[in-house]
Amino acid sequence: MQQQINDTICALATAPGGALGVIRISGNRAIEITEKMFIPRAGKPLPERKSHTVVFGDIKGEGGELLDEVLVTVMRAPHSYTGEETVEISCHASSYITQEILLHLISLGARQAEPGEFTMRAFLNGKMDLSRAEAVADVIASGSRASHRLAMNQLKGGFSAELAQLRDKLLHLTSLMELELDFSEEDVNFADRSELMTLCKEIENVISRLANSFSVGNAIKSGIPVAIVGETNTGKSTLLNALLNEERAIVSNISGTTRDIVEGTMTLGGVTFRFIDTAGVRRTNDVVEQMGIERTLEQLSKCSIALWVIDPMMDSDKLEQAAKRLLPLCSGKKLALLVNKCDVVDAITLTRAMEWGTAMVQKYGKDILWDNKHIWAISAKLGTNIDQLQDFIVEATALPDFATDDVVVTNVRHYEALKLALTDIQRVQQSMSYGQPGDLVSEDLRACIRHLSEIVGEVTSGDVLKSIFENFCIGK
Amino acid sequence: MQQQINDTICALATAPGGALGVIRISGNRAIEITEKMFIPRAGKPLPERKSHTVVFGDIKGEGGELLDEVLVTVMRAPHSYTGEETVEISCHASSYITQEILLHLISLGARQAEPGEFTMRAFLNGKMDLSRAEAVADVIASGSRASHRLAMNQLKGGFSAELAQLRDKLLHLTSLMELELDFSEEDVNFADRSELMTLCKEIENVISRLANSFSVGNAIKSGIPVAIVGETNTGKSTLLNALLNEERAIVSNISGTTRDIVEGTMTLGGVTFRFIDTAGVRRTNDVVEQMGIERTLEQLSKCSIALWVIDPMMDSDKLEQAAKRLLPLCSGKKLALLVNKCDVVDAITLTRAMEWGTAMVQKYGKDILWDNKHIWAISAKLGTNIDQLQDFIVEATALPDFATDDVVVTNVRHYEALKLALTDIQRVQQSMSYGQPGDLVSEDLRACIRHLSEIVGEVTSGDVLKSIFENFCIGK
Repeated sequence: MQQQINDTICALATAPGGALGVIRISGNRAIEITEKMFIPRAGKPLPERKSHTVVFGDIKGEGGELLDEVLVTVMRAPHSYTGEETVEISCHASSYITQEILLHLISLGARQAEPGEFTMRAFLNGKMDLSRAEAVADVIASGSRASHRLAMNQLKGGFSAELAQLRDKLLHLTSLMELELDFSEEDVNFADRSELMTLCKEIENVISRLANSFSVGNAIKSGIPVAIVGETNTGKSTLLNALLNEERAIVSNISGTTRDIVEGTMTLGGVTFRFIDTAGVRRTNDVVEQMGIERTLEQLSKCSIALWVIDPMMDSDKLEQAAKRLLPLCSGKKLALLVNKCDVVDAITLTRAMEWGTAMVQKYGKDILWDNKHIWAISAKLGTNIDQLQDFIVEATALPDFATDDVVVTNVRHYEALKLALTDIQRVQQSMSYGQPGDLVSEDLRACIRHLSEIVGEVTSGDVLKSIFENFCIGK
Repeated sequence: MQQQINDTICALATAPGGALGVIRISGNRAIEITEKMFIPRAGKPLPERKSHTVVFGDIKGEGGELLDEVLVTVMRAPHSYTGEETVEISCHASSYITQEILLHLISLGARQAEPGEFTMRAFLNGKMDLSRAEAVADVIASGSRASHRLAMNQLKGGFSAELAQLRDKLLHLTSLMELELDFSEEDVNFADRSELMTLCKEIENVISRLANSFSVGNAIKSGIPVAIVGETNTGKSTLLNALLNEERAIVSNISGTTRDIVEGTMTLGGVTFRFIDTAGVRRTNDVVEQMGIERTLEQLSKCSIALWVIDPMMDSDKLEQAAKRLLPLCSGKKLALLVNKCDVVDAITLTRAMEWGTAMVQKYGKDILWDNKHIWAISAKLGTNIDQLQDFIVEATALPDFATDDVVVTNVRHYEALKLALTDIQRVQQSMSYGQPGDLVSEDLRACIRHLSEIVGEVTSGDVLKSIFENFCIGK
C-alpha cells in the first residue's frame, strides 16, 4: 500500500521533566521550517549542512525572542528513521521552552504528529516492515530482560525473516499446485500429492509453533500471573508485600467493584511476575460482588502458578472448608503450599498444619500439579523462606528456554493472523486428502499467504494501520 | 579555583518515559568507553569521527547482547557543553534499556554523575561563569514566559556583564584610593574625595537596584502570591477552582498541621500566580492551630494582592465582624472586593452587599490600596465575571515593565552577596565622609569586589559549589 505523505510533522519525543528535551521534525520541509527559527552560532546555514551533523545555536520563539540555546541534528532523506528529511532539536527540558518551540514550528507550517506517526512513516517509506514497526512500541515499553529480548528480536527482523521463509515455501507449494492445474485436462500429476502433503505439514508445524509461542510471549510481555489463594487473615497481603519487598511502592489496587484483586509486579531472574490476590472468591448472592468474583476467576484462569496460604492456627474443620472451596480453583496449576506465621507458632502446630495441608491437596486438588516438596513454612511478616518461594516461582514458570534468535509472538494482531493462516493450511491438507480439485486448494493456499503477509504489512488496510500506530506514544 | 577532573561521568539526561532517552557521557574517556559497547552500522569507528557528527549503530549490554539501535553523537573537547570529550546516546526510552546502557558504561569505567555535575564541569572548565551556570537550572525549571525570560537573560550573561562593569568601576575607585595611600606621607590627595564619593554613590545605586530587583525576580520565579480572604462558606474554594479552571488538577494541599493554606498556581499573561486560601486565620487557644495561623499570616505578608470574598446572604453584623478581623490583614495590599453567589441572590441584595462591603473597606481598611472600581459581583460556581477578576490580578501585579535586557536578580545566593556588597560600599562612603584613612576604606572596597566576584564564581569555595549544583537535576 502507498499513502500520500506530503506534510511535515513535529512532536516532543522525550517525557516532560529531566534535563533535556528532544523535539523531532520529519518531512520535506523539516529543514526549511527549522531554519526559519534557528540561528547557528557559527558556520553554514542548516540547508547546507551534511546529514548526521549537529549544530549549536539559538532557537527563537514566534515573537523573535530567544527561547533557548540548542543543539540541532540534521538527518537527510533517506538516511533517517522515517526515511524523510529529519531534524532533532535538543533543548533544555522546560515545559515553557518545548511548548513554545512546538508552537513556532506549527505556525511555520509543521503539524503536531499523531501517536506513532514517525514510525508509521518509517513503515510507509519502506524503512521497516510492519512487524518490525510494531516492535518499536514493545521495545520502548520493555521493562525486563525477557520482554526486551523478545521485542529486540522482532525489531531486528527475526520474525520477518521466519515469515519470509514460510512464504517462500508456500509460494513453492502454490506454484506446484498451479502447474498441475494448467495441465489438469491432460490428467498429469506434476506434483506428487504425498510430497505436497509433507510440505504442507511442515508449514503447518511452523505456523503452529509460532501461534503457540504467543501464550508465553504475551505472558513475558505483560508479566506472568501468579495467584495468591487463601482465606482472609491468613496473611496474603503481607506475603504480597514480602514478595515485592523494595518494589512495594507499585502494589496497586486494580479499580473495580470489589477491589479484591490486588496486584503488584516484580522482576525475578529477568522475568516480570504479576501477583494476583484472590481474596474475593466466595459464595455470595450480591450481584455486584458476583461480578467482582467473575473477574477474579478470569484472572485466576490465566495463572499457571498458585500459592495457597494457610494459617496453622486455623482449626481443621475451617481449613477443610477452605480447601474444598479454594483448591478446585487451582486445577491445572503448579501449587506451592505455604504455612504462614511460622514465627508465632510452635513446631508441633506447624508440622500438623503442613500435614493437614498436604492431605487436603491430595483430597481436593486432584488436577493440581503438585509435588510434595512444594511446601514451605514461611513468615510473611519476617520474610522467612521467601527466597525459596521466589526460587520456586522462577522454576515453576519454566519458560521454554528459547535461544536469543528464537521467534516468539507477543502481538495479538500477529497471533490472530497466524491462527487464520493455520486454519487455511489445515484446510489445504483436508482438501488434498479428500482429493479436491487443485484450484480450490490453491485458493486456500493463497489465503494462507495473504494472512501471513498481513503481519509484515504487505496487504494491510489504512484503517488497520491507523489502529496499530495509535497505541504508540507521541514522538515515536 | 581549580579542581581535579579526571574521571568520566554518565547519566540519563531525559525524564523516564516518552519515546526517546538520551544518555550523556563526559570526560577524557567518554569516546573510548562508548566505543567498547557500540558498533556503528557503517563507516569509521567512533574515535575517528569528527566533532558534532551523529552515527547510527548497535549498542551492547554487559553480556554482549544487543540492547538497542541508537544514534550516537560525538562532541569533542573543548567544543562541547562541558568543554570535555562528550558522547550522547539517543536510545529508545525503555527503562530496561537506559538502565542497562548506564550499567555497562559504569562497568567500563564511567561514573554515575551527581546532580548538576555536567554544568559544574562546564563552569570548572571555564565554559561559563557561575551565575550563568546557575541560570541553567532556572531555564530548565521555567514554566512561564516571565520566569523563562529572566533565566535566559542570566544564561546569556546579562547579569555577568553588569557585574563586570561594576567591578571595573570598583577597581578604578580602589586604584585611585591606593594611589593616594602610596603617597600618603606626602599628604597629596590624588583622588578628589568628592569625586570618589560620587563614584561610590553611583556604584551603590547599581548594587541597590540589583538587590531590590530580587523581590520581583523571586516572585516571578516562584509565582506571584495572591491571597484569597474571607469567612468559611463564602465560596473561596470554588473561586480558587474557577480561577484555575482547566489547571484545577494542580490544586494541592500544602502539608501542615492545619491544612488551611490551599494553594494552586496558574499562568496569566505570561506570569505565574500562586493563590493562597487564608481560611485558617481566626482567634484560637489551640497551640497547633496557632502555629498554622502563623504560617498563614507569613504567607499573607508576602502577597501584594488580596481578594476579599463575601457572601451577600450573610447578615450585616456577621459581615462587620469578619471585616474587622480580616481587613487589617490586607493592609498595604491591592484589594478586590468580590460579592459571590450573584447567581442565586436578587439584585437588591447584591447591591446592598456591595455597598456594605465598600463601607467596611473604608471603615476598617485604611492602609489598603483600594479603588472603588475594584468591586465585582461574581459567581465562582458559574464563572461569572472571573475574566474581569483575572484582568484585575494581572493589572494589580504591575510588574515593573523591565526590558528584555534588564537584569533582574532571582537567586537567593546572588541576593545575599549583593546585600553584603551593598553594606561594604555604604561603609566605604561612611568611612570617607568621616575622613578615615585610605587603607581602611580600601579594605572595604576590596570586600565589596570580593562579594560581587562570588556571584560569578571567581572566589567560590568547593563547598559552596557543591551546594549550588546539588539542587540541579541529574544529567545536567
